[in-house]
Amino acid sequence: MGKKVIILGCGRVGSAMAIDMGKSYEVTVVDSSGENLLQCASENYITTFCKDISRITDWNTFLSDFDLVISAVPGYLGYETLKKVIESGKDVVDITFFPEDPFELDEIAKTNGVTAVVDCGVAPGMGNMILGHHNAVMDVHKYVCYVGGLPFEREWPWEYKAVFSPIDVIEEYVRPARYIQNGEMVIREALSDPELIEFDEIGALEAWNSDGLRTLIKTIDVPDMIEKTMRYPGTIEYLKVLRDTGFFSYDEIEIKGYKIRPIDVTTKLLFPKWQLKKGEEDFIVMRIKIEGVERKEKVTFSYDLFDRYDRKTDTLSMARTTGYTATAVADLMLGEQFQRPGICPPEYVGAEPGKLDAVLEYLKNRGVIYRISKF
Amino acid sequence: MGKKVIILGCGRVGSAMAIDMGKSYEVTVVDSSGENLLQCASENYITTFCKDISRITDWNTFLSDFDLVISAVPGYLGYETLKKVIESGKDVVDITFFPEDPFELDEIAKTNGVTAVVDCGVAPGMGNMILGHHNAVMDVHKYVCYVGGLPFEREWPWEYKAVFSPIDVIEEYVRPARYIQNGEMVIREALSDPELIEFDEIGALEAWNSDGLRTLIKTIDVPDMIEKTMRYPGTIEYLKVLRDTGFFSYDEIEIKGYKIRPIDVTTKLLFPKWQLKKGEEDFIVMRIKIEGVERKEKVTFSYDLFDRYDRKTDTLSMARTTGYTATAVADLMLGEQFQRPGICPPEYVGAEPGKLDAVLEYLKNRGVIYRISKF
Repeated sequence: MGKKVIILGCGRVGSAMAIDMGKSYEVTVVDSSGENLLQCASENYITTFCKDISRITDWNTFLSDFDLVISAVPGYLGYETLKKVIESGKDVVDITFFPEDPFELDEIAKTNGVTAVVDCGVAPGMGNMILGHHNAVMDVHKYVCYVGGLPFEREWPWEYKAVFSPIDVIEEYVRPARYIQNGEMVIREALSDPELIEFDEIGALEAWNSDGLRTLIKTIDVPDMIEKTMRYPGTIEYLKVLRDTGFFSYDEIEIKGYKIRPIDVTTKLLFPKWQLKKGEEDFIVMRIKIEGVERKEKVTFSYDLFDRYDRKTDTLSMARTTGYTATAVADLMLGEQFQRPGICPPEYVGAEPGKLDAVLEYLKNRGVIYRISKF
Repeated sequence: MGKKVIILGCGRVGSAMAIDMGKSYEVTVVDSSGENLLQCASENYITTFCKDISRITDWNTFLSDFDLVISAVPGYLGYETLKKVIESGKDVVDITFFPEDPFELDEIAKTNGVTAVVDCGVAPGMGNMILGHHNAVMDVHKYVCYVGGLPFEREWPWEYKAVFSPIDVIEEYVRPARYIQNGEMVIREALSDPELIEFDEIGALEAWNSDGLRTLIKTIDVPDMIEKTMRYPGTIEYLKVLRDTGFFSYDEIEIKGYKIRPIDVTTKLLFPKWQLKKGEEDFIVMRIKIEGVERKEKVTFSYDLFDRYDRKTDTLSMARTTGYTATAVADLMLGEQFQRPGICPPEYVGAEPGKLDAVLEYLKNRGVIYRISKF
């Protein structure tokens, strides 16, 4: 019998992971939406299970059959779900990108002998793994990561489509951005310090400060680290207008006697505008630069990714780049090649010899190709 | 005894009119807000009357003492108030700029022998009067009017302050704009066809199609007529973003079980942003061009206005240019120099010999100066 994997959440990313993992393992995928589960229906080697994950009470029984869990639930359910999985003693790969601090669960994970890899997507995820690798083998001075996921079709005014829920995306536009400069933490407004970055494949994109370093701030001691998110040029100005006017506010205002949060009105209006239509094509672009000293020599490594929607299988680039990173790590864990107990952000995976290469190879076999240069 | 005037509404414009008229007539000013009435308190020759105009039941008695009414109530109360005044048999000057068709009241006004001058501000108002004048004495081929009222201080992102309520202002950004081209009516989206117009006093402003011709579409047969509103360059793009995303929609959406109109949320958020602060300075800029044939000669007349906030008296330019146009016409009516029964848009006033000159002279005496060129 092959090993058994359960995937929690069958959105665009979850279903891509199920189909990928299903080729090597026995896969069960759970979602409350039958429509979501239909995405895997043509693959009859996948078991689909229609259930509201937030209503599971007996997690021990629910997970007892499985060797590994992949959590792809919505962000607001992420932390609670991860906690339940760890308490049930199951190894887990998490791509829910929840806002809470995952290290709060480190002790339970270690006690239960659980390996819990969190933030295991493209960003956060691959950047962490790449930096983790270099940080283990050289003296890194500087880490810069530019990343963006965008639709090919530019529809005015937003020129953006969200695979995640609009409220999670807007959170990125509101939460102050932290980066590390000369060994000090700098806190800047989200959407600040815009700069244009050219890409051969797509032209110029606009990069701005987002709070993307996450665990790296705690786990990696490099004096200069920054992550910037990218959008089509000009569109972040409109976001600033909405933010400045109060449309992203969580503070209730009174409208005709009702107490309403402007953010709820805004997400309601933006949801249909930001929704990726069936068959709509997206791309993920990422450019990472790592500067430092290796064997007494100044070196710069660059990792460039430009990945596209897969027309043959109707798989989003967001699902390919995020999902296959998670399945690559899941594959390592099921093959007993990564077994560190506790909460493991991807930099811990990258720090172990050969792991980054294994993940890059796994991704390459699925057409997700990082072009690596050293100069 | 002098003649008696009642002014309905004591906002920034109503109070300026009360103070102006109070110098020559016995003036009573009515408003439900004691704070608004305080604006006239230092002028002890004005009677202030605190009352909610929308709750007046016996209009005949209420108006019986007065020779003339000036209506400066909010736009949504404008039509109903004008109807009551006309039914009470009182001459009236109206600057409420209500959306309904004033000519619906033409018959009652004529039956009651009432002269009701409507839309009697700067825009609508002075443009109508100027075109009415030229249309009576020459063959006009083209009428173009650019107009804007703006704060001197440009506060990002809106760079705009509203003397009227935000919902009335937003109506301008939503209602399709009508203009006349080659004798045909053209209907265009509001905020369309932006162009930059240079002014010596303020630099470039951005002009766009607004539905400003109003009564001129019915009353004046000129083959090319257009009015465009002006804002600081770039700001209308943000309005288009809000409009396109649905923030100006009157259609209810459901938020946590409540039915809410996005426009109500938007006006609530914009109200504090668009509010003119005490002492904040505004200006009104207007550029009118009239082309045609006079005594077999091709001529072009231009009328240029650049008016500023009056620091000495804390009077807004919006109040000066709109309010003093209304008081100029009220002055003509009280002096029995304009007595045409029925609904009279300002083009009817301008069409009578000498009336435009009288109004321009009245305005000039108050420092509101139209520079007139003929070439």
